[in-house]
Amino acid sequence: MPTINPERLLGDLYALRKIGNYKTGVHRPTLSPDDVKARQWLAGRMTDTGLAPTIDGIGNVFGKCAASGRKILAGSHIESQNHAGWLDGALGVLFALEASRAISEDKALKNAGVDVIAFCDEEGHFGSYLGSRSFIGDVTEDEIDKAKDRTHGRPMRAALAEADYAGRPRLQFEPGRYAGFFEAHIEQGATLEQSKLKIGVVTAIVGLWDYRIKVVGQQNHAGTTTMKQRRDAGMTMIRLMSAFDQHMKKNTTPRTVWTCGKMEFDPGAPSIIPGEARANFQFRDTDAAFLEKTESELLAMAKQADQEGPCQVSVEVVRQSSPALMDESFQQALDEAGEKHAPNLWTRMPSGAGHDAQHLARVMPSAMMFVPSIGGISHHWTENTSDEDIALGSQVFTDAIARVLAR
Amino acid sequence: MPTINPERLLGDLYALRKIGNYKTGVHRPTLSPDDVKARQWLAGRMTDTGLAPTIDGIGNVFGKCAASGRKILAGSHIESQNHAGWLDGALGVLFALEASRAISEDKALKNAGVDVIAFCDEEGHFGSYLGSRSFIGDVTEDEIDKAKDRTHGRPMRAALAEADYAGRPRLQFEPGRYAGFFEAHIEQGATLEQSKLKIGVVTAIVGLWDYRIKVVGQQNHAGTTTMKQRRDAGMTMIRLMSAFDQHMKKNTTPRTVWTCGKMEFDPGAPSIIPGEARANFQFRDTDAAFLEKTESELLAMAKQADQEGPCQVSVEVVRQSSPALMDESFQQALDEAGEKHAPNLWTRMPSGAGHDAQHLARVMPSAMMFVPSIGGISHHWTENTSDEDIALGSQVFTDAIARVLAR
Repeated sequence: MPTINPERLLGDLYALRKIGNYKTGVHRPTLSPDDVKARQWLAGRMTDTGLAPTIDGIGNVFGKCAASGRKILAGSHIESQNHAGWLDGALGVLFALEASRAISEDKALKNAGVDVIAFCDEEGHFGSYLGSRSFIGDVTEDEIDKAKDRTHGRPMRAALAEADYAGRPRLQFEPGRYAGFFEAHIEQGATLEQSKLKIGVVTAIVGLWDYRIKVVGQQNHAGTTTMKQRRDAGMTMIRLMSAFDQHMKKNTTPRTVWTCGKMEFDPGAPSIIPGEARANFQFRDTDAAFLEKTESELLAMAKQADQEGPCQVSVEVVRQSSPALMDESFQQALDEAGEKHAPNLWTRMPSGAGHDAQHLARVMPSAMMFVPSIGGISHHWTENTSDEDIALGSQVFTDAIARVLAR
Repeated sequence: MPTINPERLLGDLYALRKIGNYKTGVHRPTLSPDDVKARQWLAGRMTDTGLAPTIDGIGNVFGKCAASGRKILAGSHIESQNHAGWLDGALGVLFALEASRAISEDKALKNAGVDVIAFCDEEGHFGSYLGSRSFIGDVTEDEIDKAKDRTHGRPMRAALAEADYAGRPRLQFEPGRYAGFFEAHIEQGATLEQSKLKIGVVTAIVGLWDYRIKVVGQQNHAGTTTMKQRRDAGMTMIRLMSAFDQHMKKNTTPRTVWTCGKMEFDPGAPSIIPGEARANFQFRDTDAAFLEKTESELLAMAKQADQEGPCQVSVEVVRQSSPALMDESFQQALDEAGEKHAPNLWTRMPSGAGHDAQHLARVMPSAMMFVPSIGGISHHWTENTSDEDIALGSQVFTDAIARVLAR
């Protein structure tokens, strides 16, 4: 069984954290100078590991092993949300690198190997999973032409040119090369921590269905316009979101989640009846039929609100990702490795967040493994996982890959 | 009976509209260069009318008549909301000026007179009715020290200094000088227009009770945090606002209004559970006991939400203005003048908006009269009233004042 080197792994994680360091986290938005520096650093570490690195035309960093036998692809992403945590993505990339190193050092696994990849822009600064979708052949040049940084509006083409990636070919996975894909990630939730568990074996990545709701009424004076006269976009939105919430409460499983994360009233002054209200409403579940059914129910409610008036209610689909099932035999490998290194401290669970693995799962058997997030915090610079949990996770991850490679 | 001069009145209104013109409206926020220019212009027109003008230490423009007999104070305000209408305030000031002129020209009203005033900052750029409250002795120097422009944050002291008003005494009304106060205003609602009426005789100005609601939860990932784990400030706010709305629907008169005009989620991203939500909720009514009762009911609901958790809910009082009853005998004078010049085209009605008259009513009998707003629109540059309605309103207003002066 390959044995990981915790000092080597943590040394790499600490070195990467220094690039774009922000408080105890990092600020490395996709294709920012620090993100480009991190990709360069990663390519260097791949070379040190005996992998042949390529940074491709969309910024994916791919490290190819020289093994002639059975191979696994492993990785995650390396950029961060703005002013966010040091482990979200980076942990999965460096777990992959450590697995590749430990497996190459393990004489029992002769000829087997692990290719390592850091997919570009999982965090969605420019689009939706552009790196992993590009790698499976699902991104057109046109989509890249249109992509703009959501914070600054900088076109992705300009960012790629500045990084010196423009004009490079975009790599796609080599069919037949892999037994499958493995991704490790921090949980980003509190389930493991609250249950005092160390390893999460992901059963499925939820489908995320997100909608932009717009209510158009009439801006007016909040004192002189009687309730009968007014077309209050704000109150109509509140009533609709409240009705959505009530409906979800009555029609979901314990793992379903729903969120209204964004709500804007225009003009947004205490004494002015809002003329327009905009909100996002999203729900997530691992059951495709449930997602379909819920959509049709919520759309019917919005349509009814629109027809009853006095405001116009419209709903725009922002995204509808399919739930992605993880490979059952890979889950078993993770279960076994978990039971070996962390007996009774592992569990199977769905992933409430989206990950690159959901796209890889469309073309090859895929697996995901979680380590605990302290306080369940992510997308914030205080995000953290203990060194012990990192080292333990890396060993389980590597062992599980080794079990698949040894089959 | 004094007869107004429509050309003179409309000429003045058109001239004033040119100062700070914005599309078909005006942009004259309090103590902006254009607002200061307008005050100077008004002082000049007062002089032309035979009034002795003073611009005082808070920017109130006061025109004192030389009459030795019975006197009425009349006026409104002259600054505008940002990029707003040309008549909101200006109409009342120039109705007062026209009434003063027409009455001074009317030989039957020898010795009687009308003082004209434009109160500063009714629109609340720096505070709450600072001009009219200063005129009745209800503003301290400390309140002015602390006042800042809500758009730019410029201290009122700096704005007064720039206008060259700093260091001037602040005028207060002379006790015993007036039979009372009259204010004309555009309705800012659609009641007159929809009923095809021309004159609104205000019975009372509603009390406006406004609250800032804050919900503190915990920012978290909208996918990985289960419904049981989450402390969703956004959804808690939606539920509370919806409950407030339901409660108001069941417990109000047809003239009560309530509004949630401002709603903010922090950080306000589709896939992040809001850690904080802030909203304003306000209600208005002419019945003081109803306002008290409603407040205690809503506060109890907020307290219950706070106690039930999982979010903290707090409520801050923004304002609680008392409903102001208009003088019954003045209302009768307006009824009679309305019936004379616009038979069957006048009505009694409450004012849903606040006005300077609500503060004058604390120290002297006061009256308000409305003219129709086209489409009920105000606080927007498209705000308008037809020339015919303006002229008719001015005649009714002047006649009503004359009736009080002749008593």
